[in-house]
Amino acid sequence: MPRNEPVTDVSAVVLDVNETISDTRPMAAAFERVGAPAHLATLWFGCVLRDGFALTAAGSPGDFEELARGGLRVQLEPLLPSDDLDRSVDELMATFAGLGPHPDVAPGLRALAERGLVLVTLGNGPASTARTLLERANSDDVHETLSVDDAGAWKPAPQAYAYALSRLGTVPSSTVMVAVHPWDLDGAARAGLRTAWLNRDGRPWPAYLRAPDLEVDRLDALAPLLQVSGSSAPSGA
Amino acid sequence: MPRNEPVTDVSAVVLDVNETISDTRPMAAAFERVGAPAHLATLWFGCVLRDGFALTAAGSPGDFEELARGGLRVQLEPLLPSDDLDRSVDELMATFAGLGPHPDVAPGLRALAERGLVLVTLGNGPASTARTLLERANSDDVHETLSVDDAGAWKPAPQAYAYALSRLGTVPSSTVMVAVHPWDLDGAARAGLRTAWLNRDGRPWPAYLRAPDLEVDRLDALAPLLQVSGSSAPSGA
Repeated sequence: MPRNEPVTDVSAVVLDVNETISDTRPMAAAFERVGAPAHLATLWFGCVLRDGFALTAAGSPGDFEELARGGLRVQLEPLLPSDDLDRSVDELMATFAGLGPHPDVAPGLRALAERGLVLVTLGNGPASTARTLLERANSDDVHETLSVDDAGAWKPAPQAYAYALSRLGTVPSSTVMVAVHPWDLDGAARAGLRTAWLNRDGRPWPAYLRAPDLEVDRLDALAPLLQVSGSSAPSGA
Repeated sequence: MPRNEPVTDVSAVVLDVNETISDTRPMAAAFERVGAPAHLATLWFGCVLRDGFALTAAGSPGDFEELARGGLRVQLEPLLPSDDLDRSVDELMATFAGLGPHPDVAPGLRALAERGLVLVTLGNGPASTARTLLERANSDDVHETLSVDDAGAWKPAPQAYAYALSRLGTVPSSTVMVAVHPWDLDGAARAGLRTAWLNRDGRPWPAYLRAPDLEVDRLDALAPLLQVSGSSAPSGA
Protein backbone atom coordinates (compact mmCIF):
# COMPACT_ATOMS: atom_id res chain seq x y z
CA MET A 1 0.00 0.00 0.00
CA PRO A 2 1.05 3.67 -0.20
CA ARG A 3 4.42 4.71 1.19
CA ASN A 4 2.70 7.87 2.47
CA GLU A 5 5.36 10.19 1.14
CA PRO A 6 3.84 13.67 1.28
CA VAL A 7 1.86 14.72 -1.80
CA THR A 8 3.31 17.99 -3.10
CA ASP A 9 1.91 21.10 -4.73
CA VAL A 10 -1.63 20.67 -3.39
CA SER A 11 -4.10 23.56 -3.55
CA ALA A 12 -7.52 21.94 -3.00
CA VAL A 13 -9.17 18.93 -1.40
CA VAL A 14 -12.40 17.24 -2.55
CA LEU A 15 -14.16 15.16 0.10
CA ASP A 16 -16.71 12.44 -0.47
CA VAL A 17 -19.81 12.59 1.78
CA ASN A 18 -21.67 9.34 2.57
CA GLU A 19 -19.55 7.14 4.88
CA THR A 20 -16.55 9.45 4.41
CA ILE A 21 -18.08 12.29 6.44
CA SER A 22 -21.18 10.54 7.82
CA ASP A 23 -21.01 7.69 10.31
CA THR A 24 -23.42 5.14 8.82
CA ARG A 25 -23.00 2.55 11.56
CA PRO A 26 -26.41 3.39 13.16
CA MET A 27 -28.10 2.00 10.03
CA ALA A 28 -27.46 -1.60 11.15
CA ALA A 29 -29.45 -1.12 14.38
CA ALA A 30 -32.15 0.75 12.43
CA PHE A 31 -32.62 -2.26 10.12
CA GLU A 32 -32.95 -4.47 13.21
CA ARG A 33 -35.54 -2.12 14.72
CA VAL A 34 -37.82 -2.60 11.70
CA GLY A 35 -37.38 -6.38 11.88
CA ALA A 36 -34.67 -6.95 9.26
CA PRO A 37 -31.18 -8.42 9.81
CA ALA A 38 -28.46 -5.88 10.64
CA HIS A 39 -26.23 -7.03 7.78
CA LEU A 40 -28.81 -5.80 5.25
CA ALA A 41 -27.64 -2.24 5.94
CA THR A 42 -24.35 -2.91 4.14
CA LEU A 43 -26.04 -4.86 1.35
CA TRP A 44 -28.64 -2.11 0.84
CA PHE A 45 -26.03 0.65 0.54
CA GLY A 46 -23.93 -1.48 -1.80
CA CYS A 47 -26.97 -2.10 -4.03
CA VAL A 48 -27.79 1.64 -4.13
CA LEU A 49 -24.28 2.28 -5.42
CA ARG A 50 -24.40 -0.71 -7.81
CA ASP A 51 -27.63 0.52 -9.41
CA GLY A 52 -26.48 4.16 -9.38
CA PHE A 53 -23.31 3.19 -11.24
CA ALA A 54 -25.36 0.99 -13.58
CA LEU A 55 -27.57 3.94 -14.50
CA THR A 56 -24.52 6.16 -15.00
CA ALA A 57 -22.91 3.48 -17.22
CA ALA A 58 -26.20 3.26 -19.15
CA GLY A 59 -26.05 7.01 -19.71
CA SER A 60 -28.96 8.02 -17.49
CA PRO A 61 -27.85 8.88 -13.93
CA GLY A 62 -30.48 8.41 -11.24
CA ASP A 63 -31.55 10.36 -8.19
CA PHE A 64 -29.79 9.18 -5.02
CA GLU A 65 -32.79 9.48 -2.68
CA GLU A 66 -35.07 7.73 -5.18
CA LEU A 67 -32.57 4.87 -5.42
CA ALA A 68 -32.10 4.74 -1.64
CA ARG A 69 -35.84 4.59 -0.98
CA GLY A 70 -36.59 2.19 -3.84
CA GLY A 71 -33.69 -0.01 -2.74
CA LEU A 72 -35.10 -0.24 0.79
CA ARG A 73 -38.41 -1.51 -0.63
CA VAL A 74 -36.58 -4.17 -2.64
CA GLN A 75 -34.69 -5.37 0.46
CA LEU A 76 -37.60 -5.19 2.93
CA GLU A 77 -40.66 -6.26 0.92
CA PRO A 78 -39.78 -9.98 1.06
CA LEU A 79 -39.18 -9.77 4.84
CA LEU A 80 -41.88 -7.54 6.36
CA PRO A 81 -45.69 -7.63 6.53
CA SER A 82 -46.94 -5.33 3.74
CA ASP A 83 -48.71 -3.06 6.27
CA ASP A 84 -45.32 -2.26 7.85
CA LEU A 85 -43.42 -1.59 4.64
CA ASP A 86 -44.07 2.12 4.03
CA ARG A 87 -43.53 3.01 7.68
CA SER A 88 -40.30 0.99 7.85
CA VAL A 89 -38.92 2.58 4.68
CA ASP A 90 -39.77 6.06 6.05
CA GLU A 91 -38.10 5.20 9.38
CA LEU A 92 -34.89 4.01 7.71
CA MET A 93 -34.76 7.04 5.40
CA ALA A 94 -35.19 9.27 8.47
CA THR A 95 -32.33 7.48 10.24
CA PHE A 96 -30.16 7.94 7.15
CA ALA A 97 -31.00 11.66 6.95
CA GLY A 98 -30.22 12.03 10.67
CA LEU A 99 -26.75 10.46 10.64
CA GLY A 100 -23.96 12.48 12.25
CA PRO A 101 -20.35 13.07 11.22
CA HIS A 102 -17.43 10.91 12.33
CA PRO A 103 -15.57 12.56 15.25
CA ASP A 104 -12.37 12.97 13.21
CA VAL A 105 -14.14 15.08 10.56
CA ALA A 106 -14.27 18.52 12.25
CA PRO A 107 -10.62 18.50 13.43
CA GLY A 108 -9.55 17.04 10.09
CA LEU A 109 -11.27 19.79 8.09
CA ARG A 110 -9.85 22.43 10.45
CA ALA A 111 -6.29 21.18 9.98
CA LEU A 112 -6.66 21.14 6.18
CA ALA A 113 -8.18 24.65 6.09
CA GLU A 114 -5.45 25.99 8.37
CA ARG A 115 -2.90 24.92 5.77
CA GLY A 116 -4.62 27.22 3.28
CA LEU A 117 -6.25 24.47 1.24
CA VAL A 118 -9.60 25.08 -0.43
CA LEU A 119 -12.09 22.38 0.62
CA VAL A 120 -15.21 21.19 -1.19
CA THR A 121 -17.43 18.15 -0.79
CA LEU A 122 -18.62 16.11 -3.76
CA GLY A 123 -21.33 13.53 -3.06
CA ASN A 124 -23.43 11.21 -5.19
CA GLY A 125 -26.37 12.38 -3.06
CA PRO A 126 -27.86 15.86 -2.73
CA ALA A 127 -25.74 18.78 -1.55
CA SER A 128 -28.09 19.23 1.42
CA THR A 129 -26.76 15.99 2.97
CA ALA A 130 -23.26 17.45 3.17
CA ARG A 131 -24.54 20.82 4.48
CA THR A 132 -26.47 19.12 7.28
CA LEU A 133 -23.47 16.98 8.25
CA LEU A 134 -21.12 19.99 8.32
CA GLU A 135 -23.58 21.90 10.53
CA ARG A 136 -23.68 18.93 12.89
CA ALA A 137 -19.87 18.87 12.87
CA ASN A 138 -19.99 22.60 13.69
CA SER A 139 -17.56 23.19 10.81
CA ASP A 140 -17.44 26.18 8.47
CA ASP A 141 -14.19 25.12 6.81
CA VAL A 142 -15.79 23.80 3.61
CA HIS A 143 -15.95 26.30 0.77
CA GLU A 144 -18.74 24.63 -1.20
CA THR A 145 -20.92 21.51 -1.04
CA LEU A 146 -21.20 20.00 -4.53
CA SER A 147 -23.46 17.27 -5.84
CA VAL A 148 -23.12 15.11 -8.94
CA ASP A 149 -26.71 16.18 -9.69
CA ASP A 150 -25.06 19.18 -11.36
CA ALA A 151 -22.41 17.06 -13.13
CA GLY A 152 -24.65 14.85 -15.27
CA ALA A 153 -23.03 11.65 -13.99
CA TRP A 154 -22.33 9.94 -10.66
CA LYS A 155 -18.82 9.39 -9.45
CA PRO A 156 -16.69 7.56 -10.54
CA ALA A 157 -17.49 8.84 -14.09
CA PRO A 158 -14.88 11.41 -15.20
CA GLN A 159 -17.53 14.14 -15.64
CA ALA A 160 -18.15 14.18 -11.87
CA TYR A 161 -14.51 14.99 -11.01
CA ALA A 162 -14.27 17.44 -13.93
CA TYR A 163 -17.27 19.29 -12.50
CA ALA A 164 -15.58 19.64 -9.08
CA LEU A 165 -12.37 20.86 -10.73
CA SER A 166 -14.33 23.43 -12.73
CA ARG A 167 -15.93 24.76 -9.54
CA LEU A 168 -12.56 24.87 -7.80
CA GLY A 169 -10.65 26.30 -10.76
CA THR A 170 -7.79 23.90 -10.01
CA VAL A 171 -5.88 21.42 -12.15
CA PRO A 172 -6.27 17.71 -11.34
CA SER A 173 -2.65 17.26 -10.24
CA SER A 174 -2.99 19.89 -7.48
CA THR A 175 -6.30 18.48 -6.22
CA VAL A 176 -6.63 15.61 -3.72
CA MET A 177 -9.73 13.39 -3.54
CA VAL A 178 -10.45 11.99 -0.07
CA ALA A 179 -12.84 9.07 0.37
CA VAL A 180 -13.45 5.84 2.25
CA HIS A 181 -14.53 4.12 -0.99
CA PRO A 182 -11.83 2.61 -3.21
CA TRP A 183 -14.00 2.94 -6.38
CA ASP A 184 -14.16 6.72 -5.79
CA LEU A 185 -10.40 7.06 -5.51
CA ASP A 186 -9.87 4.84 -8.55
CA GLY A 187 -12.15 7.11 -10.60
CA ALA A 188 -10.47 10.25 -9.26
CA ALA A 189 -7.02 8.84 -10.11
CA ARG A 190 -8.18 8.05 -13.66
CA ALA A 191 -9.36 11.68 -13.89
CA GLY A 192 -5.84 12.79 -12.91
CA LEU A 193 -6.45 13.76 -9.28
CA ARG A 194 -4.23 12.75 -6.38
CA THR A 195 -5.93 10.43 -3.90
CA ALA A 196 -6.05 9.84 -0.14
CA TRP A 197 -7.79 6.77 1.26
CA LEU A 198 -9.52 7.29 4.58
CA ASN A 199 -9.44 3.71 5.85
CA ARG A 200 -10.89 3.91 9.36
CA ASP A 201 -11.47 0.15 9.68
CA GLY A 202 -8.17 -1.23 8.42
CA ARG A 203 -9.76 -2.83 5.34
CA PRO A 204 -7.69 -4.31 2.51
CA TRP A 205 -7.41 -2.37 -0.75
CA PRO A 206 -8.99 -4.13 -3.78
CA ALA A 207 -6.09 -5.20 -6.01
CA TYR A 208 -8.02 -4.45 -9.22
CA LEU A 209 -8.30 -0.69 -8.51
CA ARG A 210 -5.61 2.00 -8.77
CA ALA A 211 -3.82 2.27 -5.46
CA PRO A 212 -4.19 5.58 -3.59
CA ASP A 213 -1.30 8.02 -3.11
CA LEU A 214 -1.94 8.21 0.63
CA GLU A 215 -3.66 6.15 3.31
CA VAL A 216 -4.79 7.47 6.70
CA ASP A 217 -7.00 5.99 9.40
CA ARG A 218 -8.40 9.37 10.54
CA LEU A 219 -9.14 12.55 8.59
CA ASP A 220 -7.10 14.60 11.06
CA ALA A 221 -4.00 12.61 10.06
CA LEU A 222 -4.17 13.90 6.49
CA ALA A 223 -3.04 17.54 6.66
CA PRO A 224 0.61 16.79 7.59
CA LEU A 225 0.89 14.60 4.45
CA LEU A 226 -0.07 17.39 2.04
CA GLN A 227 2.49 19.99 0.90
CA VAL A 228 0.57 23.07 -0.08
CA SER A 229 1.27 24.80 -3.43
CA GLY A 230 3.90 27.52 -2.96
CA SER A 231 4.40 26.62 0.70
CA SER A 232 8.12 26.00 0.16
CA ALA A 233 8.48 29.50 -1.29
CA PRO A 234 9.73 32.27 1.00
CA SER A 235 6.95 33.80 3.06
CA GLY A 236 5.59 37.24 2.18
CA ALA A 237 5.63 36.49 -1.57
CA MET B 1 -45.72 -4.95 -13.13
CA PRO B 2 -45.90 -6.13 -16.76
CA ARG B 3 -49.27 -7.17 -18.19
CA ASN B 4 -47.45 -9.99 -19.96
CA GLU B 5 -49.10 -9.33 -23.28
CA PRO B 6 -47.05 -11.25 -25.86
CA VAL B 7 -44.10 -9.37 -27.32
CA THR B 8 -44.44 -9.36 -31.11
CA ASP B 9 -42.03 -9.55 -34.04
CA VAL B 10 -39.21 -11.22 -32.13
CA SER B 11 -36.30 -12.79 -33.96
CA ALA B 12 -33.58 -13.24 -31.34
CA VAL B 13 -33.09 -13.67 -27.59
CA VAL B 14 -30.04 -12.56 -25.57
CA LEU B 15 -29.60 -14.32 -22.23
CA ASP B 16 -27.56 -13.11 -19.27
CA VAL B 17 -25.31 -15.76 -17.67
CA ASN B 18 -24.43 -15.40 -13.95
CA GLU B 19 -27.52 -16.07 -11.79
CA THR B 20 -29.74 -16.09 -14.90
CA ILE B 21 -28.37 -19.41 -16.20
CA SER B 22 -26.23 -20.45 -13.21
CA ASP B 23 -27.68 -21.37 -9.85
CA THR B 24 -25.46 -19.42 -7.42
CA ARG B 25 -27.15 -20.63 -4.24
CA PRO B 26 -24.30 -23.07 -3.37
CA MET B 27 -22.06 -20.00 -2.80
CA ALA B 28 -23.69 -19.32 0.59
CA ALA B 29 -22.70 -22.75 1.95
CA ALA B 30 -19.25 -22.36 0.39
CA PHE B 31 -18.68 -19.12 2.33
CA GLU B 32 -19.72 -20.93 5.52
CA ARG B 33 -17.30 -23.79 4.77
CA VAL B 34 -14.36 -21.36 4.76
CA GLY B 35 -15.55 -19.79 8.04
CA ALA B 36 -17.42 -16.70 6.76
CA PRO B 37 -21.11 -15.89 7.22
CA ALA B 38 -23.43 -17.20 4.47
CA HIS B 39 -24.88 -13.74 3.74
CA LEU B 40 -21.46 -12.55 2.51
CA ALA B 41 -22.08 -14.49 -0.72
CA THR B 42 -24.75 -11.98 -1.79
CA LEU B 43 -22.71 -9.00 -0.59
CA TRP B 44 -19.61 -10.25 -2.41
CA PHE B 45 -21.42 -10.67 -5.73
CA GLY B 46 -23.10 -7.28 -5.34
CA CYS B 47 -19.71 -5.65 -4.72
CA VAL B 48 -18.20 -7.34 -7.80
CA LEU B 49 -20.98 -5.81 -9.89
CA ARG B 50 -20.71 -2.45 -8.09
CA ASP B 51 -16.99 -2.18 -8.82
CA GLY B 52 -17.38 -3.56 -12.34
CA PHE B 53 -19.96 -0.89 -13.13
CA ALA B 54 -17.76 1.73 -11.44
CA LEU B 55 -14.86 0.83 -13.72
CA THR B 56 -17.13 0.89 -16.78
CA ALA B 57 -18.50 4.31 -15.71
CA ALA B 58 -14.89 5.48 -15.24
CA GLY B 59 -14.14 4.37 -18.80
CA SER B 60 -11.89 1.44 -17.99
CA PRO B 61 -13.81 -1.86 -17.78
CA GLY B 62 -12.26 -4.53 -15.58
CA ASP B 63 -11.81 -8.28 -15.86
CA PHE B 64 -14.62 -10.23 -14.18
CA GLU B 65 -12.46 -12.97 -12.68
CA GLU B 66 -9.92 -10.46 -11.39
CA LEU B 67 -12.72 -8.53 -9.69
CA ALA B 68 -14.32 -11.70 -8.33
CA ARG B 69 -11.04 -12.94 -6.84
CA GLY B 70 -9.96 -9.52 -5.54
CA GLY B 71 -13.42 -8.98 -4.06
CA LEU B 72 -13.19 -12.25 -2.15
CA ARG B 73 -9.91 -11.11 -0.57
CA VAL B 74 -11.53 -7.81 0.49
CA GLN B 75 -14.45 -9.66 2.12
CA LEU B 76 -12.44 -12.46 3.73
CA GLU B 77 -9.18 -10.83 4.86
CA PRO B 78 -10.75 -9.16 7.94
CA LEU B 79 -12.39 -12.47 8.96
CA LEU B 80 -9.92 -15.29 8.36
CA PRO B 81 -6.42 -16.14 9.63
CA SER B 82 -3.98 -14.93 6.97
CA ASP B 83 -2.65 -18.48 6.42
CA ASP B 84 -6.14 -19.56 5.29
CA LEU B 85 -6.82 -16.65 2.95
CA ASP B 86 -5.31 -17.86 -0.34
CA ARG B 87 -6.76 -21.36 0.06
CA SER B 88 -10.21 -20.00 0.93
CA VAL B 89 -10.24 -17.64 -2.06
CA ASP B 90 -9.20 -20.52 -4.36
CA GLU B 91 -11.90 -22.76 -2.88
CA LEU B 92 -14.64 -20.15 -3.40
CA MET B 93 -13.49 -19.41 -6.96
CA ALA B 94 -13.58 -23.16 -7.67
CA THR B 95 -17.12 -23.40 -6.29
CA PHE B 96 -18.14 -20.44 -8.49
CA ALA B 97 -16.57 -22.05 -11.58
CA GLY B 98 -18.35 -25.34 -10.76
CA LEU B 99 -21.89 -23.95 -10.45
CA GLY B 100 -24.57 -25.71 -12.46
CA PRO B 101 -27.54 -24.39 -14.44
CA HIS B 102 -31.02 -23.85 -13.00
CA PRO B 103 -33.29 -26.79 -13.92
CA ASP B 104 -35.60 -24.53 -15.99
CA VAL B 105 -32.74 -23.47 -18.31
CA ALA B 106 -32.47 -26.48 -20.67
CA PRO B 107 -36.25 -26.81 -21.31
CA GLY B 108 -36.52 -23.01 -21.59
CA LEU B 109 -33.79 -22.81 -24.23
CA ARG B 110 -35.32 -25.76 -26.10
CA ALA B 111 -38.75 -24.11 -26.25
CA LEU B 112 -37.27 -20.82 -27.51
CA ALA B 113 -35.16 -22.55 -30.16
CA GLU B 114 -38.13 -24.63 -31.31
CA ARG B 115 -39.94 -21.38 -32.12
CA GLY B 116 -37.14 -20.53 -34.54
CA LEU B 117 -35.54 -17.84 -32.37
CA VAL B 118 -31.78 -17.29 -32.52
CA LEU B 119 -30.31 -17.51 -29.02
CA VAL B 120 -27.06 -16.01 -27.71
CA THR B 121 -25.71 -15.47 -24.22
CA LEU B 122 -24.09 -12.18 -23.15
CA GLY B 123 -22.27 -12.20 -19.82
CA ASN B 124 -20.09 -9.72 -17.92
CA GLY B 125 -17.78 -12.68 -17.28
CA PRO B 126 -15.81 -14.77 -19.79
CA ALA B 127 -17.61 -16.66 -22.57
CA SER B 128 -16.20 -19.92 -21.16
CA THR B 129 -18.53 -19.62 -18.14
CA ALA B 130 -21.58 -19.76 -20.39
CA ARG B 131 -20.12 -22.60 -22.49
CA THR B 132 -19.47 -24.71 -19.39
CA LEU B 133 -22.99 -24.06 -18.05
CA LEU B 134 -24.61 -24.98 -21.37
CA GLU B 135 -22.60 -28.21 -21.50
CA ARG B 136 -23.79 -29.03 -17.99
CA ALA B 137 -27.36 -28.25 -19.09
CA ASN B 138 -26.77 -30.63 -22.02
CA SER B 139 -28.07 -27.89 -24.33
CA ASP B 140 -26.94 -27.11 -27.86
CA ASP B 141 -29.67 -24.54 -28.52
CA VAL B 142 -27.47 -21.47 -28.05
CA HIS B 143 -25.98 -20.10 -31.27
CA GLU B 144 -23.10 -18.15 -29.69
CA THR B 145 -21.72 -17.37 -26.22
CA LEU B 146 -20.71 -13.69 -26.10
CA SER B 147 -18.73 -11.79 -23.49
CA VAL B 148 -18.54 -8.05 -22.83
CA ASP B 149 -14.75 -8.57 -22.99
CA ASP B 150 -15.22 -8.07 -26.74
CA ALA B 151 -17.57 -5.08 -26.32
CA GLY B 152 -15.26 -2.68 -24.48
CA ALA B 153 -17.77 -2.09 -21.68
CA TRP B 154 -19.72 -4.15 -19.16
CA LYS B 155 -23.48 -4.31 -19.28
CA PRO B 156 -25.51 -2.14 -18.71
CA ALA B 157 -23.46 0.28 -20.89
CA PRO B 158 -25.07 0.64 -24.36
CA GLN B 159 -21.94 -0.66 -26.13
CA ALA B 160 -22.48 -4.12 -24.58
CA TYR B 161 -25.97 -4.52 -26.07
CA ALA B 162 -24.87 -2.98 -29.37
CA TYR B 163 -22.14 -5.62 -29.58
CA ALA B 164 -24.67 -8.46 -29.13
CA LEU B 165 -26.95 -6.92 -31.79
CA SER B 166 -24.02 -6.65 -34.20
CA ARG B 167 -23.22 -10.34 -33.71
CA LEU B 168 -26.87 -11.28 -34.19
CA GLY B 169 -27.49 -8.92 -37.09
CA THR B 170 -30.87 -8.00 -35.56
CA VAL B 171 -32.48 -4.66 -34.73
CA PRO B 172 -33.08 -3.83 -31.05
CA SER B 173 -36.86 -3.93 -31.32
CA SER B 174 -36.87 -7.55 -32.53
CA THR B 175 -34.42 -8.69 -29.83
CA VAL B 176 -35.40 -9.70 -26.30
CA MET B 177 -32.97 -9.50 -23.35
CA VAL B 178 -33.61 -12.08 -20.61
CA ALA B 179 -32.08 -11.65 -17.16
CA VAL B 180 -32.69 -12.01 -13.44
CA HIS B 181 -31.04 -8.62 -12.80
CA PRO B 182 -33.20 -5.51 -13.09
CA TRP B 183 -30.15 -3.28 -13.91
CA ASP B 184 -29.45 -5.46 -16.97
CA LEU B 185 -33.00 -5.14 -18.31
CA ASP B 186 -33.01 -1.39 -17.62
CA GLY B 187 -29.84 -1.00 -19.68
CA ALA B 188 -31.19 -3.22 -22.46
CA ALA B 189 -34.44 -1.21 -22.57
CA ARG B 190 -32.45 2.04 -22.84
CA ALA B 191 -30.57 0.44 -25.77
CA GLY B 192 -33.94 -0.23 -27.44
CA LEU B 193 -34.27 -3.96 -26.76
CA ARG B 194 -37.40 -5.66 -25.46
CA THR B 195 -36.99 -7.15 -21.99
CA ALA B 196 -38.12 -10.22 -20.06
CA TRP B 197 -37.51 -10.47 -16.32
CA LEU B 198 -36.77 -13.95 -15.04
CA ASN B 199 -37.92 -13.49 -11.44
CA ARG B 200 -37.57 -16.95 -9.89
CA ASP B 201 -37.85 -15.72 -6.28
CA GLY B 202 -40.83 -13.37 -6.52
CA ARG B 203 -38.73 -10.28 -5.78
CA PRO B 204 -40.10 -6.73 -6.13
CA TRP B 205 -39.01 -4.64 -9.13
CA PRO B 206 -36.96 -1.52 -8.22
CA ALA B 207 -39.23 1.46 -8.97
CA TYR B 208 -36.33 3.60 -10.25
CA LEU B 209 -35.54 1.28 -13.21
CA ARG B 210 -37.46 0.87 -16.48
CA ALA B 211 -40.08 -1.83 -16.03
CA PRO B 212 -39.66 -4.98 -18.14
CA ASP B 213 -42.02 -5.91 -20.97
CA LEU B 214 -42.50 -9.41 -19.56
CA GLU B 215 -42.08 -11.21 -16.25
CA VAL B 216 -41.79 -14.97 -15.82
CA ASP B 217 -40.81 -17.14 -12.86
CA ARG B 218 -39.20 -19.87 -15.01
CA LEU B 219 -37.31 -19.69 -18.30
CA ASP B 220 -39.57 -22.36 -19.80
CA ALA B 221 -42.55 -20.01 -19.33
CA LEU B 222 -41.08 -17.45 -21.75
CA ALA B 223 -41.49 -18.98 -25.24
CA PRO B 224 -45.33 -18.77 -25.30
CA LEU B 225 -45.07 -15.00 -24.64
CA LEU B 226 -42.91 -14.29 -27.69
CA GLN B 227 -44.46 -13.92 -31.15
CA VAL B 228 -41.77 -14.75 -33.66
CA SER B 229 -41.11 -12.44 -36.63
CA GLY B 230 -43.16 -13.49 -39.66
CA SER B 231 -44.96 -16.20 -37.68
CA SER B 232 -48.35 -14.66 -38.50
CA ALA B 233 -47.55 -14.63 -42.24
CA PRO B 234 -48.84 -17.51 -44.37
CA SER B 235 -46.47 -20.45 -44.35
CA GLY B 236 -44.31 -21.18 -47.36
CA ALA B 237 -43.53 -17.49 -47.92
